[in-house]
Amino acid sequence: MGEFSLIEKYFSSQAQHRKKDHTVLGIGDDAAVINVPTGQQLVVTMDTLIEGVHFPQYTCPQDIAYKSLAVNVSDLVAMAANPAYFLLSLSMPNANEAFLREFSDGLFEAADEFNISLVGGDTCKGPLSISIQATGFVDENKFVTRSGASIGDKILLSGPLGAASLGLASLQNRITLSDIQSTHCVSCLNRPVPRVDLIDLLGQFASSAIDLSDGLVGDLGHILKSSQVGALIDKQKLPAYEGYSDYALTGGDDYQILFTVAEKNMDKLISSAEQLNQQFFVIGEIVEQGYMMLDQNQPVDLSTFKGFDHFVS
Amino acid sequence: MGEFSLIEKYFSSQAQHRKKDHTVLGIGDDAAVINVPTGQQLVVTMDTLIEGVHFPQYTCPQDIAYKSLAVNVSDLVAMAANPAYFLLSLSMPNANEAFLREFSDGLFEAADEFNISLVGGDTCKGPLSISIQATGFVDENKFVTRSGASIGDKILLSGPLGAASLGLASLQNRITLSDIQSTHCVSCLNRPVPRVDLIDLLGQFASSAIDLSDGLVGDLGHILKSSQVGALIDKQKLPAYEGYSDYALTGGDDYQILFTVAEKNMDKLISSAEQLNQQFFVIGEIVEQGYMMLDQNQPVDLSTFKGFDHFVS
Repeated sequence: MGEFSLIEKYFSSQAQHRKKDHTVLGIGDDAAVINVPTGQQLVVTMDTLIEGVHFPQYTCPQDIAYKSLAVNVSDLVAMAANPAYFLLSLSMPNANEAFLREFSDGLFEAADEFNISLVGGDTCKGPLSISIQATGFVDENKFVTRSGASIGDKILLSGPLGAASLGLASLQNRITLSDIQSTHCVSCLNRPVPRVDLIDLLGQFASSAIDLSDGLVGDLGHILKSSQVGALIDKQKLPAYEGYSDYALTGGDDYQILFTVAEKNMDKLISSAEQLNQQFFVIGEIVEQGYMMLDQNQPVDLSTFKGFDHFVS
Repeated sequence: MGEFSLIEKYFSSQAQHRKKDHTVLGIGDDAAVINVPTGQQLVVTMDTLIEGVHFPQYTCPQDIAYKSLAVNVSDLVAMAANPAYFLLSLSMPNANEAFLREFSDGLFEAADEFNISLVGGDTCKGPLSISIQATGFVDENKFVTRSGASIGDKILLSGPLGAASLGLASLQNRITLSDIQSTHCVSCLNRPVPRVDLIDLLGQFASSAIDLSDGLVGDLGHILKSSQVGALIDKQKLPAYEGYSDYALTGGDDYQILFTVAEKNMDKLISSAEQLNQQFFVIGEIVEQGYMMLDQNQPVDLSTFKGFDHFVS
C-alpha cells in the first residue's frame, strides 16, 4: 500500500469525518484553507517528538500519538488559546499498517478530547519522529505570555509534579517504584493531559503562564527572565508526587501549568475555581529579584539549578 | 552551548529583526501570536525533509534550509496564497554551531526571498530532519485548488521540468551529464525556487493548480482525480530540460506550477504574462475522461504510469 493510500485510509477520512466549522478545505490538496473567526488572533506552536529522546523506545503507538498532540495543545493552553487545528508530519521507518492504525487511533482520541482538528501534513520514510504544528484562537490581545508577572503576584501550579519523570526513571531502572506507582507514573509520562479545562480561567486571571515541559525550576526561570522579576518559592508547598520533591523541581514532561496571579485577583480566582471544582497550589510569590526557594526555612539559590536541555543532558 | 542559547543565537534574534506587521508576539514564549488581516483566509501546509530521502547526504546546510522552506512555500503558491509566516522544527544529531550558522543563513536568505517570516518552532536532538509548517493569507475564497479543472481548460506549465531529477541521477551516478549540465541540475535539485512571482496570476486565471513535487504524470493525475476529469497532453510540447522527456514526465522536485485555465481566460492570461515577462507552456487540454499523452501522434496511456511514492520506490 503506497503513501497516498495510507494517508487516505488512516488520516484523511477520519479527519474529514471530524471537520470543524473553521475548515474551508481539509486534507487532500496542496494545502488546507481555514477561516479565522472575526476578532480572534492566532496562537501558533510546533513541537517535534523523537523516539528515544522524547518518548522511550517501545512506547505504544497510541501513546506516542496522544503525547505528540498533547504537548502542543499544552502550549496553546499556556497562552490561554482555544485549540483549533493542527498539522502532522509523521516520519517512520516503514509504512507499517498496524502502527498506523494504532497511531491514528491515539491521535484522533486526543484530537477529540482536546477539541482540535487535523487539517494537513505529510507522512514520509525516516527514523520515527512526529512533528505537530498546532494553532489556537484567542480573543484579540487576551493571550497570556511569560512576560506579565509583576512583583507581589502569587505563583500557582495547576497540579502535582514529578510523576512523569519518575515514570521515565522507573522505565530506565534508575529508581524502584511500587507497581501501582510505576503504572501511574508511566501513564503520566506517556499520556500527559494538557489542561484545556483551565483555558478560560487563565485568560481571565493569569498575569503570566508557562506549561511545565522542562521542569519547574527551568520553566519558572523562563517566566522570571521574560518578566524581569525574581521569585521566592516554598519547597514544602510544592505538590510533589508522593513526596519526591527533586523530581517535582527538575523533572520534565508534567504539562501542568505554572502561572502567576495578581494578589487582587486571587479571591476571584479561588471562587471561580471552586465553582469549577478546580484545585490550584500556591507555591510562592514574585519578588523584585533573585530566585530563591525556602527548604524548611533555609534559603536555596535556584538560579544555579539547571533545567532540562536536550543538548546539554 | 545549550539548546536555548543556540536558538537565541541563530534563530530568535534574526527572526526578531525581520518581524513582520502580522506578528504580535514572535519567538520566545510558549507560542507565537499572529494577526490575520481582515477578509483573509489562512492557507496552511507542512512538509518534512529528511536527509537521504528528500535531499542527498552531504547537501550543504544552506541548501537544506533553503529547500525546506522553498517546498513549503511552493504549496502556498499552488493555492495562490501569499506567504505570511512559518514555524520550523529542526532535529539534528548534535548542536554543531557551524551547521547552525550555515543552516540559518540559508533559511533567512530563503525567507527574505519569499517574503515569509519565522515565528516559532523548536530544535531537538535526533537524526537530521527539518519540518516546516508554512501559512499564507489569501482573499476570502480566492484560493485555487486541485479540483477546479473543467473540460476544455488548457493545461499549462510554469517552466521546464526534469532538471532536478537529472541532478539527483547525476549525484547517484545513474547518468552522465556534462559539467555544465550537472552543475545546473544539482542546483535545481538543491535550490528549487518556488514560483512566488506567479501568485497573483494564478489567483486571477487558474481554474486548478498543483506544484510539481512528485513528477508531472503523478501530479497531473491528482488534478484529474480531484476534478473528476481526464486529460490529453502532447509529449512534444513538454518543456523538458535538454530533451530528457522521461525525467520531465516522472522526475520530481521541480516545483514548477502545473495549472489549468479556461479557454476564455487564455487571452487575458497571455497578455498579463507578457506584461510581467512571464512565459508559460501549454501542454494539453482537459477532456471528459482518460489520461492520455500523444507521442509523435501515437497515444500513450498515462493512467498506468507511477508517480513518485516514498513507500513504494
